Order: sequence, then C-alpha cells, then structure tokens
Amino acid sequence: MRELYLIRHGLAGERGTYANDDERPLTDTGIKRTRQVAKRLKQLGLQFDVLLSSPLVRARQTAELLQAAGLARAVTITTTLAPGGSLPTWMADYGDRPWQRLALVGHEPDLGLWAEQLVWSRPSGQLVVKKAGVIGLEVPETHLALGSARLFWLTPPRLLL
Amino acid sequence: MRELYLIRHGLAGERGTYANDDERPLTDTGIKRTRQVAKRLKQLGLQFDVLLSSPLVRARQTAELLQAAGLARAVTITTTLAPGGSLPTWMADYGDRPWQRLALVGHEPDLGLWAEQLVWSRPSGQLVVKKAGVIGLEVPETHLALGSARLFWLTPPRLLL
Repeated sequence: MRELYLIRHGLAGERGTYANDDERPLTDTGIKRTRQVAKRLKQLGLQFDVLLSSPLVRARQTAELLQAAGLARAVTITTTLAPGGSLPTWMADYGDRPWQRLALVGHEPDLGLWAEQLVWSRPSGQLVVKKAGVIGLEVPETHLALGSARLFWLTPPRLLL
Repeated sequence: MRELYLIRHGLAGERGTYANDDERPLTDTGIKRTRQVAKRLKQLGLQFDVLLSSPLVRARQTAELLQAAGLARAVTITTTLAPGGSLPTWMADYGDRPWQRLALVGHEPDLGLWAEQLVWSRPSGQLVVKKAGVIGLEVPETHLALGSARLFWLTPPRLLL
C-alpha cells in the first residue's frame, strides 16, 4: 500500500484583504500553528518522497513549512492543486508515478471532495477538513482509481497537537 | 452540534485461545497502549457525558480504562454494541437522548460500517479502524439519522501517541 496525504493550508488572512486572493499569506498565528503541525508530523515518523503544493501563497507557505521541518526534500508547485482543480487531471499527472508517500497541500472544499471520490467514488462534502488539517489515504501500489483508496486518518490540528 | 465517538477495543489475546470468545481479555500490551490512548484523549480535552460499551470483556476493559483516565463518570454496558449489533436498534435506544458527547466502545467491522452509514448512509468498509483507534462524528442536536453526520476525526493510536 502507498500512502497519500492531503493537507489543507494553514490559517491565512481574511478573504478580501488582498486585491489578488492568490497572494493572501498565512497569518502569524497560521505560521506558528502550521509549524507546530509540521513538527508533530515529523515526530510521528512521517516522511514524504513527493510533496506537491497549490500555487497560491498560503498553500506554498504551508508546504515550505512542511519541507523546513524535514518532511520532504523538495516542494513541487502544480496548478492542478489550485482551488477548483481537477482530480482526474491530477490523477493523470501523479496517480501512477512511483511514489510511496505523497503529500499535497491544497484547498477546501476540494481536498475533502477529492478524498471522498478516491475512497467512495462520490463527492458528498461530509468530511470536516480544518486549516492545517490532514487526511491520510491508503492507495493501491499499482493504479490509483476513484473508489480504490481507504481512509486511515483525518485530524484537525486541535486533536493532533 | 453534538459529538459521537466510536472507539475500538484495544489489543486482545489471539482469537481461539478462549473457549468463549466473549471472555477474551486485553493483553498486557493492549492494556498499556489503551491506557496511553485514554490519557492522551483526556490531555486533548475530551470528556464524555455518556460512555457505552459492548458487553465483551475486551471492550469493557477498554471502556473502564477510559473511565479510569477521567474521560467519563460511568460505563454503561449495552448488548446492542456486541459484534454484529444493529445500528437502527442502537439509534432507537440512544440517538435522541440528550447527550452532548457520547463515546461507545465496540468492535470491527461494525464501528467503521456504522460510521459510514451515519455519514454517507451506506456501509462500504472503506474506513481503516485500528485497535484502540477513534472515530469522531459531528451529529445534529435534534435527531440522529443515517447520512446526518460529518466525519471530523479518525485516528489510529500510532498517529495519536
């Protein structure tokens, strides 16, 4: 089994405070909290051989904090993880590459809907994914398809730290 | 929102080592690990106003360790939580009582299937629920129905401790 981690960006500034929403950064509290989450993930023994991020500033900053904590060697920015990104496109790009533990940093509601589709084939919006929250899926070694994953982890920061 | 926690019993002796499987107790490692989980749940600020358990020894012991950690004042044993128990019967008994945070200790595959039915209306067997693992559901204040819950937490002990 391979492991796929879907991580939501940390606490960012208020929507509407930046002319371009893509530029909205993490707040000081968001940086502190995300750094704590990253440290805790490392302490739990996690290590990602691939770490992907949405191109938006708040996601990139989150991925960089994960990298800085030693969870991955590099961050790859991919536009398929921007808000409203296409799961089939992402799967075509990354689903069948030879990773063992892939983490991606993105946005809600996409992450919860993607996880539901990978596990139960259908998006329902019934997962609660908090900022800097983590979803963990077991996925097949050979081919990532809708409905092929199992959910083994879902945690908000308050129940992790 | 009310919170419903489904907790799987800790590590027990090998199946087949007891004439009556209902009597199979936690192992020493199971007791130690379950005690650590209980302590951690308390540390995270959890408190259950109702704590239910399956009548099987391994579940009762698990519930008693949760109680001993200060997570609940009492343990109530209910046969609806025995392996193969009926979710509709349990819901008729407990779904609409005035609890705010109810925890129940039971068995797999029932707990994962119950959680899936409460959240997505259908049991699929796609949740990985480890021994002494915890599922957390947000459920409506007024009426607990299939498909009315949201999943906010799922954790194996290894990602909690």
